[in-house]
Amino acid sequence: MPRQELEYPKEPNNTVKRYPEKGKALIIPPFSPHSLTKLPSTAKYELETIHRIINSSQIVHVAFNAPNGEGFPSILPMIGQMGSYSRPSADLGDPLDLYLHGYVSSRIISLGRSSSSSESSEGLPVSISAAFVDGLVLSLTPNSHSYNFRSAVIFGNATLVTDPQEKLYAMELVTNGVAPQRWQKSRTPPSPGEMASTSILRVKIKNGSAKVRTGGPSDAKEDMEDLEMRSKVWAGVIPVYQTLGEAIPAEYNLAGDKVPDYLEEWRKEENEDAKVYAKDVGARPYVKVKKSAEEDE
Amino acid sequence: MPRQELEYPKEPNNTVKRYPEKGKALIIPPFSPHSLTKLPSTAKYELETIHRIINSSQIVHVAFNAPNGEGFPSILPMIGQMGSYSRPSADLGDPLDLYLHGYVSSRIISLGRSSSSSESSEGLPVSISAAFVDGLVLSLTPNSHSYNFRSAVIFGNATLVTDPQEKLYAMELVTNGVAPQRWQKSRTPPSPGEMASTSILRVKIKNGSAKVRTGGPSDAKEDMEDLEMRSKVWAGVIPVYQTLGEAIPAEYNLAGDKVPDYLEEWRKEENEDAKVYAKDVGARPYVKVKKSAEEDE
Repeated sequence: MPRQELEYPKEPNNTVKRYPEKGKALIIPPFSPHSLTKLPSTAKYELETIHRIINSSQIVHVAFNAPNGEGFPSILPMIGQMGSYSRPSADLGDPLDLYLHGYVSSRIISLGRSSSSSESSEGLPVSISAAFVDGLVLSLTPNSHSYNFRSAVIFGNATLVTDPQEKLYAMELVTNGVAPQRWQKSRTPPSPGEMASTSILRVKIKNGSAKVRTGGPSDAKEDMEDLEMRSKVWAGVIPVYQTLGEAIPAEYNLAGDKVPDYLEEWRKEENEDAKVYAKDVGARPYVKVKKSAEEDE
Repeated sequence: MPRQELEYPKEPNNTVKRYPEKGKALIIPPFSPHSLTKLPSTAKYELETIHRIINSSQIVHVAFNAPNGEGFPSILPMIGQMGSYSRPSADLGDPLDLYLHGYVSSRIISLGRSSSSSESSEGLPVSISAAFVDGLVLSLTPNSHSYNFRSAVIFGNATLVTDPQEKLYAMELVTNGVAPQRWQKSRTPPSPGEMASTSILRVKIKNGSAKVRTGGPSDAKEDMEDLEMRSKVWAGVIPVYQTLGEAIPAEYNLAGDKVPDYLEEWRKEENEDAKVYAKDVGARPYVKVKKSAEEDE
């Protein structure tokens, strides 16, 4: 019997609004390029789905309120990876922290620092968004157009990582999130100066949610019955996926023009997975998910 | 003599923090896949650069403060395009509004509506972020790793569009932002019911900024002098770009299996431009931009 899948709590700020009558923004059991054979039976608030989308993202968008923001949240692109320092072998469906690499902003780091220094504070409230477009869904009428996509939003409290061992764990996690094994295959450990100049924020997650759309277009009954219009308007999906191009050695590279296998094999697998996923979900029929009793709440 | 390029004002919440000593997050005159031959002479606060990044983005991340958010901004992926209803022929370097298509969230729409109904209100403060990764920049040591990227952040006040003509303008703008000419090539105009069920937010922009990195890796002097290490650690760039795959006709498509030229030609051009840009910026040497007097402020 499978272990029960963990979900984030449903609270006002992470509750996904749905418009099933418009056939848009529909929730479908998600699967990632990295687990095409696995179709989780639940969606939306399931930790594994949310964490997988975050960890597949090269960039996450981080919003927080800074003093004197005049109502405007600050928002920044950052690099983030989810992991567990206390239990590094934790898998994606377990409770995890988000580690944010902070060189892109001094503002969030200083706010995270002041939050860390106050014993009574939980840390700076931050909201994180990540999204992939997997296809342009071109229906008969603009009103029914959509994207195939995977998106996740998480909320948590950010504090600056001060323990050098935890910082080292997070630096490796973030580096290998950009390209697997890169930490081991490049000059490490960091020097004391590099350690001192690197700021990492740890976000303790309060909740989160995900949305995934897959499948071909869907049109309203009236449009489907207009055969003359349908003979003119092309309907279908243009798959969208990211490609990692052939590696370009730096001018000063002395390690040979041949790109190392650990990069080249990873690159080819990523490209194949991304392409297969986008084509696969674009070729599927669109399935309207029935609302469960819980979702009707 | 060229017209002076317009820039957004430098204010605390859009001022780009830079760490030139780390060789990261550096500002370089940006150029887009769509204007490879044009190299603007200024960056960062220039309207054209910022607007071009936003309009190239299939998804933008929108943050705002909702009541009872407990300090956490709401954050949502949405579809957005910049344009000018009062002057539709305006170009990207002119002052423009951001139109957000709102079916993805009822919360922001209802806040935008309440902001619109109050005569004294400027509208809901929203912060928008968009970013592209153009390459993984693999230097000798994780500390110097970077991305080639283009990112933009804009701030403005959102109100619900109530004028039907302006709504129609925005619906066409957003649709053709997803795929050029799609509005003209699909079943339009929208029915009265479709008009009523579509919510569009107009964001009056207060300010914004952009950051762009291009070029190969850059390493610290000590690492460059370690020839033994350099013979082992591969350094270079893996270009990253989006690919639009071969279109997949819907099961109910009656307009022929052949994909229309307006889609197919656009798809091939986009793919070529994106690939050429990522490879081109990955093959360039990294150039440290000298800080100008203004930037030293």
